[in-house]
Amino acid sequence: MITSIEESPLYRIANARSMAFFGASNSISSMGTHLLLSLKAGGYPGVVYPVHRTEDTVLDFKAYRRVEDLPEAPDLAVIVLPTRIVNDTLEACGKKGIRNAVVVTAGFREMGADGAALEAELKRIARTYHMNIVGPNCLGVANPHRHINTTFIPNEGPQGFVGLASQSGSFVTQMFEYLSGFGLGFSTAFSVGNEAMLDIVDCMEYLALCPHTKVIALYIEGIRRGRAFMDAARAISPHKPIVAFYAGGSAAGKSAGLSHTGALAGPDELYDGMFRQAGVIRAQSMVELFDFCWVLGTMPLPKGKSVVIQTHSGGPGAAAADACGRAGLVLPKLSPDTLEKLAPFIPATGSVGNPVDLTFAKDYSDFYYKIPKILLEEEQNDILLVYLLSPPQVIERALRQMGYDEKMAAEQAPKLVELHAGQLAGLFQSKKKPIIGFSFHRPDTHVMEQVILKGLPVFQGADRAARAAKALVAYAGVRLRSVKS
Amino acid sequence: MITSIEESPLYRIANARSMAFFGASNSISSMGTHLLLSLKAGGYPGVVYPVHRTEDTVLDFKAYRRVEDLPEAPDLAVIVLPTRIVNDTLEACGKKGIRNAVVVTAGFREMGADGAALEAELKRIARTYHMNIVGPNCLGVANPHRHINTTFIPNEGPQGFVGLASQSGSFVTQMFEYLSGFGLGFSTAFSVGNEAMLDIVDCMEYLALCPHTKVIALYIEGIRRGRAFMDAARAISPHKPIVAFYAGGSAAGKSAGLSHTGALAGPDELYDGMFRQAGVIRAQSMVELFDFCWVLGTMPLPKGKSVVIQTHSGGPGAAAADACGRAGLVLPKLSPDTLEKLAPFIPATGSVGNPVDLTFAKDYSDFYYKIPKILLEEEQNDILLVYLLSPPQVIERALRQMGYDEKMAAEQAPKLVELHAGQLAGLFQSKKKPIIGFSFHRPDTHVMEQVILKGLPVFQGADRAARAAKALVAYAGVRLRSVKS
Repeated sequence: MITSIEESPLYRIANARSMAFFGASNSISSMGTHLLLSLKAGGYPGVVYPVHRTEDTVLDFKAYRRVEDLPEAPDLAVIVLPTRIVNDTLEACGKKGIRNAVVVTAGFREMGADGAALEAELKRIARTYHMNIVGPNCLGVANPHRHINTTFIPNEGPQGFVGLASQSGSFVTQMFEYLSGFGLGFSTAFSVGNEAMLDIVDCMEYLALCPHTKVIALYIEGIRRGRAFMDAARAISPHKPIVAFYAGGSAAGKSAGLSHTGALAGPDELYDGMFRQAGVIRAQSMVELFDFCWVLGTMPLPKGKSVVIQTHSGGPGAAAADACGRAGLVLPKLSPDTLEKLAPFIPATGSVGNPVDLTFAKDYSDFYYKIPKILLEEEQNDILLVYLLSPPQVIERALRQMGYDEKMAAEQAPKLVELHAGQLAGLFQSKKKPIIGFSFHRPDTHVMEQVILKGLPVFQGADRAARAAKALVAYAGVRLRSVKS
Repeated sequence: MITSIEESPLYRIANARSMAFFGASNSISSMGTHLLLSLKAGGYPGVVYPVHRTEDTVLDFKAYRRVEDLPEAPDLAVIVLPTRIVNDTLEACGKKGIRNAVVVTAGFREMGADGAALEAELKRIARTYHMNIVGPNCLGVANPHRHINTTFIPNEGPQGFVGLASQSGSFVTQMFEYLSGFGLGFSTAFSVGNEAMLDIVDCMEYLALCPHTKVIALYIEGIRRGRAFMDAARAISPHKPIVAFYAGGSAAGKSAGLSHTGALAGPDELYDGMFRQAGVIRAQSMVELFDFCWVLGTMPLPKGKSVVIQTHSGGPGAAAADACGRAGLVLPKLSPDTLEKLAPFIPATGSVGNPVDLTFAKDYSDFYYKIPKILLEEEQNDILLVYLLSPPQVIERALRQMGYDEKMAAEQAPKLVELHAGQLAGLFQSKKKPIIGFSFHRPDTHVMEQVILKGLPVFQGADRAARAAKALVAYAGVRLRSVKS
């Protein structure tokens, strides 16, 4: 294991100060052009050296005819050339003194025997010139904190805390938009492709030391270095959570993965055991992978698995209770002391069991602050699951009851939603216990946007929230185990 | 079983031509007012008779001091009064000749022995006057096709095909907004509350005969009339799909449901067996309940469980293959004939296994029309799962490659997305095989809106799509069984 991030073979790839770019041109019909456009659109502050046989400038960057002509050996070469000229280009880069490369080009091992021979040659060149290579057959790296993005989709999402190592390039590029919907973004995301040289384990080691990365996400179709993976995961997981989605579990998934990157998948149970032993939290889908990252990256860890559910509707309460039960969480009864504190806030029709069901919110501020505060202050409650419902019509009506006229109520309602979201989010910080929201509001509604903006994870439906809570509990267990051992 | 919808005790509740309204006033602080406001906001075309002790008009409707003063016996009484005066009011309604009531008021059986006594009295009155009663402790009915909505949240969603019977009022009101996000809406939704008289079985029988209802959704915390439920479901399911989410399965869910509506839940396995025997498709969450309704209400039924996956990214393909495998679906190999037809459309880097992985879309029209057409024309493929990815930047670039300038490309890109969405959606109609989309686009993006608008179900993530496909297969099995028996 490396002990500082600078030692990582990925360091100068994810933090390249200068890049040679092979395959970009002024024609929009070449893929390389799109990659360079993404880099440019992201505001990359480093030096870019397009290498092009005929052009003097490429996308306004001064171009060079041959890599030998570059004024320096840049940190990184990005190669998006036809397969047959990749190895020659790599060799020229090596001679020039370039020590890092992203090979985007496909057509290697994943394409059968001829491709495998090309990949063997690529590896020989890499060893000869001591080059660190990501790929081939990948999309490279996106590090929003350095405005680096070698993929073909511009990253319009925020700088974030999710470190991703992915055996699928799509699950880098197509998550820019997806994650931004939750206010999330990547710290750094690697598309590892065929992993000819650097693999998912190298990425984990890099991300473990990356200061922007709070949680490591893995998309896995097959692990090549099982032993190294276990060692790395075991060393990292007590300090930084690792979440993995393994898509090779079923026979169908295995066969699809094989034709994708040529990775050999193992039986589902094998991976399950590996993950458990190494302290890796397993997700069952891509959606769940990032659900788990969201809570692990934002919420304090719970002391135990006791959940208290707060709702003002019986159905969502029952559904959440059921989802918690299925996820292996427990719902303790509230103490007499807590019941007494809650009494003033619960209408006669309400229920002060667990779930705490208000039936309706007498006062939305109570729902967003006073009640959850009481619930979090009860020693035995480790996690609060809260059902978020703030229909603008209902908030406006409540304001009108307080004497506002129609126009003022319409103006004040969004402000009230913002206030409430902030109040609730403030509690996980002051009480140091996780709060997870669930809701059926559309993601584009004001209340959802505000709650997320204020830092609370909120999921559509109770089961995603309960499973995310379980991921927190599971990771708290990983931490505890490591302290004990 | 009833044989015409007019025979249903719910008919004049869900299709009331006139309503007496108890508990609404001109004060925004009473819940009844909100219910009447919802009804009004929905444009209810029938006659409304607010009954109020002192006001001459209520929300601009002419008000009556006592039910005895009404000029006729309206179809329905909606009662949102304090618990203690509900039964007297009901009795007065009975005497007046009103034969149908929605009792929204809570505080009955769900509140212990005193409440149970009140509920027994309510039932006695109902029997004496031959009244059909929904509730108490419910939100009543929403029938967008008749502009009826007795709940406290205005329904701004469309008229739809999902018929819901719910043991939670929230799962009526809070689904207006949720469903509208997918272009879906209710045909009619019933919140059954304590089911003192009419229960979920009555709702199923009504919805079975409702011409607007294509699929029946059930939210269940506990079934009271097991035998009747089985009989009704067995009779209905061969003709109209029934999907159920049962929230009482885990110990925690059971206990929460009990305190909510006083329904006694049974063991999970019992419900599982009942559902299977009666041809009811079981959903594992509210999200899944409506996912299943969506595909069952829009897609033709598959002949078998063979799925072909189309993608232009390896990761989503592998994840979808895995999800299909876990859902019990199979991915057949493509025939030589189909492979030959596909060849012109697949780039060298692509893979023509199953998943069909284009690696990138050479031409988006091929992806949305020519390729899925070939895949659906292959006899053995029963269902098409298609990964939808149309980033506006990439579409615009493709247009620029075709010679459009920047401005024209930006103008044409959304039109192209609309065209593609229509082409793909046209195929499920012409080929009579289900197409299910999956994507990681944000729900508010143009491509998602368009695909949904054109009638295709599209889910975030492969696992929801695969499980929805499995629901179609399961329901096709229910149909087949009924034909054979």
